[in-house]
Amino acid sequence: MAIDRLAGRILALKNPTVIGLDPRFDQLPAFLQNEMIKRYGETPRAAAEAFFEFNRRIIDAACDVVPAVKPQIAMYEQYGAEGIAAYQRTTAYAAQKGLIVIGDIKRGDIASTAAAYSDGHLGEVAVGNTRHVIYNEDFITVNPYLGYDAVEPFLANCKKYGKGLFILVRTSNPGADIQNIMTANGPVYETVARLVGKWGEELMGACGYSAVGAVVGATHPEQIKRVRELIPGVFFLVPGYGAQGATAEDLAPCFDKKGLGAVVNSSRGIIFAYKDEKYRKDFPETEFDKAARQACIDMRECLNEVVSYV
Amino acid sequence: MAIDRLAGRILALKNPTVIGLDPRFDQLPAFLQNEMIKRYGETPRAAAEAFFEFNRRIIDAACDVVPAVKPQIAMYEQYGAEGIAAYQRTTAYAAQKGLIVIGDIKRGDIASTAAAYSDGHLGEVAVGNTRHVIYNEDFITVNPYLGYDAVEPFLANCKKYGKGLFILVRTSNPGADIQNIMTANGPVYETVARLVGKWGEELMGACGYSAVGAVVGATHPEQIKRVRELIPGVFFLVPGYGAQGATAEDLAPCFDKKGLGAVVNSSRGIIFAYKDEKYRKDFPETEFDKAARQACIDMRECLNEVVSYV
Repeated sequence: MAIDRLAGRILALKNPTVIGLDPRFDQLPAFLQNEMIKRYGETPRAAAEAFFEFNRRIIDAACDVVPAVKPQIAMYEQYGAEGIAAYQRTTAYAAQKGLIVIGDIKRGDIASTAAAYSDGHLGEVAVGNTRHVIYNEDFITVNPYLGYDAVEPFLANCKKYGKGLFILVRTSNPGADIQNIMTANGPVYETVARLVGKWGEELMGACGYSAVGAVVGATHPEQIKRVRELIPGVFFLVPGYGAQGATAEDLAPCFDKKGLGAVVNSSRGIIFAYKDEKYRKDFPETEFDKAARQACIDMRECLNEVVSYV
Repeated sequence: MAIDRLAGRILALKNPTVIGLDPRFDQLPAFLQNEMIKRYGETPRAAAEAFFEFNRRIIDAACDVVPAVKPQIAMYEQYGAEGIAAYQRTTAYAAQKGLIVIGDIKRGDIASTAAAYSDGHLGEVAVGNTRHVIYNEDFITVNPYLGYDAVEPFLANCKKYGKGLFILVRTSNPGADIQNIMTANGPVYETVARLVGKWGEELMGACGYSAVGAVVGATHPEQIKRVRELIPGVFFLVPGYGAQGATAEDLAPCFDKKGLGAVVNSSRGIIFAYKDEKYRKDFPETEFDKAARQACIDMRECLNEVVSYV
């Protein structure tokens, strides 16, 4: 079960850090941009090849210090089929290197449409009598606005294939008008949190957490605390650490006494560490992967000031 | 502006029907499945090529009777890069044939991630100094759960590129736990409706409707009426007609006296019309496209019992 493998890796590495693999072509090391443009022209193919090569090196450099990666599909999808091919290669490569792969796809639709997303991302698709695995994701993120009808096909494949979900509860952006709409039972996101807890009841892992997790943004510490109280058996995927301003102290309520309860994502802070003043002097642009590895270690140390493992 | 072009085509054709291009490989005509498996094996490529050929023939057959098509990206995305290539070819071909293209993608994310979706689907992406149009969509559907932060990058590109949105307000599924959460201002979807109205205020078209529309499911007639009262200047994209059980009478409140106000989607009822008892006797499987065309004409006649054009 994906949630137990995730818990096992976190405990083995004493690290709840997730690398957000969200490349942007114009922010990649210049040598990599130039090399791919030289080979493929100024085409979507060049961007896609650069993304995979960039990810591959970061995965190689950091796969023994972090339990998981979280590629953001939007960055790939914007380049069409070539971009999606790079996303597929990234998920396959990360899985091959023993990393847990969290596909940040935030899909949500109903009936046979939801089933198509679910089969593509968590299960298998059939062509004639042959079945294909398309994306190598262990978890995906899911948008709950369409309700249980939209979530059910994902739950079914979590059961069938041993996968997991992180359902959006409270995202890391300040606005979030809809999530904060007030009701007699607290803001809307509290009701969503309770539903996520309920939906995951039949998918409890041996680690004490459900395969159905929740996305809870690090930028709202008091809300993290509240959601943790509401759904103690739900694992959190926490975005917003680092670049978006949250600190390790803000995250303490996510974790239990064994060091489990959450994975914390950082994207720019890790993959673009080589641009950061802190790392620039030690790592030239060509060693962007080593800078990323060091950033993962530093993030681990920082988080472990508030997380303790038994 | 996409909303004015959509309105113009509806009035010219006296038809608010949208064809939902949601192919499923195992439901395509057997000759088409066999042909593509023969050429490409039982591969994602075979599914993708069959999807494009199926769509191309339906587009050719129906582009003079309907104003728009709505491909559902999930059906393509489940086959990975090959599927996305078929989606891109479908949007490009439909646009070339003069159809308005509504990409049913239901994306929703924040900050630079939302900008990536927005540039890919509504704008252009850059590689070096070259800019590329990736998907040929005039409108996309958007999930509002992340609030204004998630919608703003789409609004910006609607302005810049003359595009439009349909934001999920009340979907056509029965469950929809979240949309129906009750508040002091009515259920959550009513607040979302009001926000959609507000977000679209700066994007009013000459036709009297905003470029920012709303998805309102046909399966809840009393709710359609209520949402129409709340946001009179917002165009509706209405799923759930036909296979999901709604009738033309249910949709009457969507439309104004000029015949504008909504587009009504039918997927299976049109693209798989050749399987329907009603059409099977006149159209063999090889003429699935002619069956689809006839289904579009019949749907127009049916809708026009409640819509009148001035």
